[in-house]
Amino acid sequence: VSFTHRVRVYYEDTDTGGIVFYANYLKFFERARTEWLRHGAQGVDGVSQQQIADELGLLFVVRSTAVQYHRPARLDDLIRIESSVERAGRVGIDFVQQAFLDIPDGPLLASGRIQVACVTRALRPAQIPPGLRAIFVDEESV
Amino acid sequence: VSFTHRVRVYYEDTDTGGIVFYANYLKFFERARTEWLRHGAQGVDGVSQQQIADELGLLFVVRSTAVQYHRPARLDDLIRIESSVERAGRVGIDFVQQAFLDIPDGPLLASGRIQVACVTRALRPAQIPPGLRAIFVDEESV
Amino acid sequence: VSFTHRVRVYYEDTDTGGIVFYANYLKFFERARTEWLRHGAQGVDGVSQQQIADELGLLFVVRSTAVQYHRPARLDDLIRIESSVERAGRVGIDFVQQAFLDIPDGPLLASGRIQVACVTRALRPAQIPPGLRAIFVDEESV
Amino acid sequence: VSFTHRVRVYYEDTDTGGIVFYANYLKFFERARTEWLRHGAQGVDGVSQQQIADELGLLFVVRSTAVQYHRPARLDDLIRIESSVERAGRVGIDFVQQAFLDIPDGPLLASGRIQVACVTRALRPAQIPPGLRAIFVDEESV
Repeated sequence: VSFTHRVRVYYEDTDTGGIVFYANYLKFFERARTEWLRHGAQGVDGVSQQQIADELGLLFVVRSTAVQYHRPARLDDLIRIESSVERAGRVGIDFVQQAFLDIPDGPLLASGRIQVACVTRALRPAQIPPGLRAIFVDEESV
Repeated sequence: VSFTHRVRVYYEDTDTGGIVFYANYLKFFERARTEWLRHGAQGVDGVSQQQIADELGLLFVVRSTAVQYHRPARLDDLIRIESSVERAGRVGIDFVQQAFLDIPDGPLLASGRIQVACVTRALRPAQIPPGLRAIFVDEESV
Repeated sequence: VSFTHRVRVYYEDTDTGGIVFYANYLKFFERARTEWLRHGAQGVDGVSQQQIADELGLLFVVRSTAVQYHRPARLDDLIRIESSVERAGRVGIDFVQQAFLDIPDGPLLASGRIQVACVTRALRPAQIPPGLRAIFVDEESV
Repeated sequence: VSFTHRVRVYYEDTDTGGIVFYANYLKFFERARTEWLRHGAQGVDGVSQQQIADELGLLFVVRSTAVQYHRPARLDDLIRIESSVERAGRVGIDFVQQAFLDIPDGPLLASGRIQVACVTRALRPAQIPPGLRAIFVDEESV
């Protein structure tokens, strides 16, 4: 199971080095996870995080991030984010996410491993509802 | 002449008040102007700002911003930015931009007037190339 | 009544034009207002916005911003923010804020007028508590 | 050798979860490294990155980041960043950085390992000038 999302590089994303500020790849990766959640999967409806917060009182929080920066991106570049799940537990999911320059044979720009956990509004660990988990995990293969 | 662009609200855009951080509407408005420039207009090819910098040695800088905040937006909202040109001079363009919640009869969230100027890499005023100006201005009506 | 606050320009604040991204002056101005509130005034204790939210259930929200950009700032520059109150009403305060390069006779970089309002957690207008208002307003002169 | 730097949490740093947006710890860590560089060390003058770029044509870029998030921080919290060098090579330095809530016995909020490399303006690897390296490394112990 994987998901593709594209982001455009705007002025806000760049820094005085003329390239995308490295911390912003965490934002790009998060947008991709959010769109995956909203998009759903085959046979599984998507959902927004605001709905999950309002209706279930649950949030997804990030437990750890590890990102390697391979090549710089510049203003106006289109970046393709490829996301997949490396490990899915009861309360957390580990994503592997890669950012490519979205041109033919475009190089890998950055790659990351993002660990996400489900928590209550009081920030206590909570089980990921099966309907959400099924978006990211092909249950038969788990 | 006008242009419509949509942006999704992600975690990065919100603040602890539970709403979109007001400064981020300047980012949304800029994304819309950037996409307008890239998209072009009827009979006028679009162009990226990176191309303009690389090929013409020109940048667009913001001279002033004035934004009124009417209604808050929240995580996962889709925002529709409507942009138009209020005044187009030789070296600058004044944009009027409005952000609506993108649902039927969605309310106005924020409205702004953004003054942009064309400058050289040394940040000196420069004439806007006619081919770029034609993207934003219906020349016959000027 | 006025208040001085200084901010350093870091990589995160710059863009590919080699200068401070204009939207970030709104952040600098807000940091200055926040520090003014925390610092208090002669004979008036300061307070944090988190305390105001937790103890009084009140937030300050920004109603409008108008900023003129005069000169660019660069990485590592020190910026001095001078803030004063132009008008103080029962539910809102209008601030005038100026950003200077913090060197002898440093030029004016940006100037803004920021309208702030006091609201409840449900985002309804609320009277500014007199103890907070007194931080920003010399009551005898009002 | 180590360095302490403090940052205050402002509205811009928070998200709708009511806590500091995790990506912003990368900004806090970078501010700390920048201030360390500017501050210098015993017997070694500090320097700004803008000076290094202007005078030596060199930039520091981030090669990788790995951050664990332990406890959330909130609006108005004061965060203390403790930075040290884990490994210093000819072209790169690996920093270990920890963010603590800056109250007595304040908990660890986040900890990270940030790999930085020295590059030319064309983004090619370059040797770190010894005068800069000496800020971060007690040469006798290396």
